[in-house]
Amino acid sequence: MSHYHTFTPTDALAYAREHAGLADPSVLVSASEVGDGNLNLVFKILDSDGISRVIVKQALPWVRCVGESWPLTPDRARLEAQTLIEHYRHAPRHTVKVLYHDPELATIVMEDLSDHQIWRGELIQGRHYPQAIDQLAEYLAQTLFHTSDFWLPPHDKKRQVANFINPAMCEITEDLFFNDPYQEHPRNNYPEQLESEVVQLREDRALKVAVAGLKHRFLTHAEALLHGDIHSGSLFVADGSLKAIDAEFGYFGPIGFDLGTAMGNLLLNYCGAPGLLGIREAADVREQRLLDLRALWLGFHQRFLALAHDKSRDATLASPGYAEAFLQKVWFDSIGFCGTELIRRSVGLSHVADLEEIQDERMRLACISHAITLGRTLIVLADRLDNVDELIARIRQYS
Amino acid sequence: MSHYHTFTPTDALAYAREHAGLADPSVLVSASEVGDGNLNLVFKILDSDGISRVIVKQALPWVRCVGESWPLTPDRARLEAQTLIEHYRHAPRHTVKVLYHDPELATIVMEDLSDHQIWRGELIQGRHYPQAIDQLAEYLAQTLFHTSDFWLPPHDKKRQVANFINPAMCEITEDLFFNDPYQEHPRNNYPEQLESEVVQLREDRALKVAVAGLKHRFLTHAEALLHGDIHSGSLFVADGSLKAIDAEFGYFGPIGFDLGTAMGNLLLNYCGAPGLLGIREAADVREQRLLDLRALWLGFHQRFLALAHDKSRDATLASPGYAEAFLQKVWFDSIGFCGTELIRRSVGLSHVADLEEIQDERMRLACISHAITLGRTLIVLADRLDNVDELIARIRQYS
Repeated sequence: MSHYHTFTPTDALAYAREHAGLADPSVLVSASEVGDGNLNLVFKILDSDGISRVIVKQALPWVRCVGESWPLTPDRARLEAQTLIEHYRHAPRHTVKVLYHDPELATIVMEDLSDHQIWRGELIQGRHYPQAIDQLAEYLAQTLFHTSDFWLPPHDKKRQVANFINPAMCEITEDLFFNDPYQEHPRNNYPEQLESEVVQLREDRALKVAVAGLKHRFLTHAEALLHGDIHSGSLFVADGSLKAIDAEFGYFGPIGFDLGTAMGNLLLNYCGAPGLLGIREAADVREQRLLDLRALWLGFHQRFLALAHDKSRDATLASPGYAEAFLQKVWFDSIGFCGTELIRRSVGLSHVADLEEIQDERMRLACISHAITLGRTLIVLADRLDNVDELIARIRQYS
Repeated sequence: MSHYHTFTPTDALAYAREHAGLADPSVLVSASEVGDGNLNLVFKILDSDGISRVIVKQALPWVRCVGESWPLTPDRARLEAQTLIEHYRHAPRHTVKVLYHDPELATIVMEDLSDHQIWRGELIQGRHYPQAIDQLAEYLAQTLFHTSDFWLPPHDKKRQVANFINPAMCEITEDLFFNDPYQEHPRNNYPEQLESEVVQLREDRALKVAVAGLKHRFLTHAEALLHGDIHSGSLFVADGSLKAIDAEFGYFGPIGFDLGTAMGNLLLNYCGAPGLLGIREAADVREQRLLDLRALWLGFHQRFLALAHDKSRDATLASPGYAEAFLQKVWFDSIGFCGTELIRRSVGLSHVADLEEIQDERMRLACISHAITLGRTLIVLADRLDNVDELIARIRQYS
C-alpha cells in the first residue's frame, strides 16, 4: 500500500485520462464525486458537454459512513476488480466492464452506466423492466457455473479460491447476516415497537440452529465465485439491459447465497409495496414480485442445468442426475439465505429503501414486521419447501 | 526449489545431526533408507548401538513406485510438515512430532517411532490394541475441532485454508477415490474374475450420482484441516499409544472424509479377516471390527460435541443444538466416504494388505467382492443410515 493516497476529483480526472483507454483522453475535462454508498469514493469523469464517460472508484481505508474509527482494508478494491473481471468473462452483457485497476491505489476505472438506473429505485417506483429478471438469472447462471467445479479444472479452482480469499468483507457478512440480528448488538437497528418480535428471534432455538447452519455453509462451502452482495442496489437496469456492479464481497462461497440475496431483495420489495404504492398498484406489484421470484429461480435453474449438461468438464460431476441433485441443495440453501437477507435488512445495521422510505409510520412498522416474520419462516422451513411453487404458496400465507 | 537435491544416507545423517536438536548429535553414527511407501525417501538415523533415534523423510519430485515419468511436487513435504505441526498442537499424544522441516529440501526431521508398529500389520495379524480406537477418536476430534470454524476465528481460518491448498495431492484423491473406479481406466487394478461387478459400478446411476456428491463435497467443503489419508497404514500403534504419520494429503476438507477413511479401513480388515485368519479367529476379529467402528464414531462424536459445547469460539455455531445437527451431516458424509474407500482399495490403483495378502485365490476374490458390495451399499444408502447401529445392522446383512 506504499503509494496509496485518497483521490481528489483532479486526481481522478488525470487518472481516468491515463487509464480509461480512450482514443482521445483530452475529451475528459472534469470529475465529480458522486459516491453515496457506505464504503468508497466514486467519481464520474465528464466530457465538455457534462456527460459522464467513465467511472473511477476508489476504496477508502475505512467504512465511509462510519468514519476512520472503522478501518476496512482497501484490498477490497482488488477483490472487486478481479471478481468483476472474472464475471465479465462469463456474462459480459450483465457485468460492468473494468477498464483498469490498481491494487495499491485501490482504484478501479470502469465503464460509465449513466444511461442505467439503480434497480432498487425503479422497483420502489413500481417501474417494471420486463427483461431484468431473465437477465439476472443469466448473469447468475453464467458466473456461478463457470467458476464452479463443474467448469474449473481442480488446480485452477484451488488457485482461484486462494486468490479470492476475502476475510474483511466476509466478516461483515458473517456479522450482519448471521450474528447481529439473533443477539443483542449495538449495530442492530429496528423500531422499538418491534422489540418483542426481535426478542423472539433471539429466543427461537430452531431458528438459531438453522441460521448457524447457513453461517457454517457461508464459511465453508466454496462452490463458486459469488458476487457476494447481489441485492437490487448492486444492479443497474435500463430498457433491455441489466448490469451487476459493486462486487467487493466477491469470494468462493455457496451458490445459494447469491440466489438467496437476489430473491430476498425481491421479497423486501414485496413486503414494502403496500407502504410505497396505492392499494391496487401495490397488489399488482406484489403479484409481479412473485412472478419475478419464480422466473428468477426457474431461469437460473434451467440455464445452470443446461450448462452442466452441455459444458461440464468434470466427468464425475457430469454424471446424469447429479446437477439436478446439486441444484436441489442450492434451492434449499437459497431459501434459507433469502430469509437471512429479509431479517438482516429489517433488524440489522443495513436497511433498504423499500422499507425505509415508507412514510406512514404504522404501515412502515407493518411492512418491516412482515419482512421479519417471512424471513423467520423461510429460514426455519427452508428444507421443507421443495420447489418454488411451494415457496410462493407459503409467502402468500404470510401476506 | 533452488538447493533441492536427493539425499544419500550420508546426507541424511549429517542433516539429522544438525537439525534433530539432540544435546549430543555425535551419538548419531549411521543412516539406513527404509522407505517402503510410494512417494518418499525415509531414513532411520541410528546410534552406535544400531538403535534408530530419529527419522529423516524427504519427498522425491516424482511418485517413487512409478518413477520419474510421474512427477509430483516436493511441496507436499511442506504441507505434510505443517499439517503434522498443526495437528500436534491439538493432539500431541497422537501425532508424530516434527523436529525440523525445510520446504526447499522437502525434508522433515521427526521423532523415531521404532517402538511402534504400523497398525495395519497388527490388524492383519489379529493383534488387538485395546486403546487404539479410543485414541484415534481423540486424535480426530481434537485435530478436526480445533481447525474448524467452531474454534478458529474467521480470519485465521481463511489464512489457513489458503496456506493448506494442496492441489497435487488432492488431485490424487480426486482421481483414485472418485473418478477411476467408476469408469474404465488403466490405473484400475482388480481381478479379472470380478469384471462383471466392476462393470456394474460403472453402470449404476444412483451410485454415480452419490459418488459425484461426495467428490463435490471433497472439492468444496473446507470444514477442517484433514489428515487426508488416515488409513491404518498411516497410524503407528504400541501398547497404550497411537500416533498419526504421513499427512502429505492434508488440506481443508469435509470432516467426514477423515472419519470415513478410518472407518473404511476397519471395514477392509473386516472384509479380509476370513481370508487372513482361521474361522473362529476371523469371526472374533469381525465382531471386534464392528465394535471398533461403533467405538470410533461414538468416541469421536462424544468428544467433538463436548469440545463444541465447552470451547466453541463462534457464538453462532455454538447455538444449542447446532453441533448435534452438524455432526449428523458429518455422519452421513462419513458413511459415503467410507464406501468410496472400500471401493477404491478393491477396484482402484492402490490396494491394502488386508485383502492382498490373502493366499487362497477363491477366498481373496470373495473378500474383495465383499468389499465392493459393501462399499457400493454404503455409498448409495448413506443418507438413510441414521446412526452407527443402523450401519452395523446393514453391514451384517452383507457379511
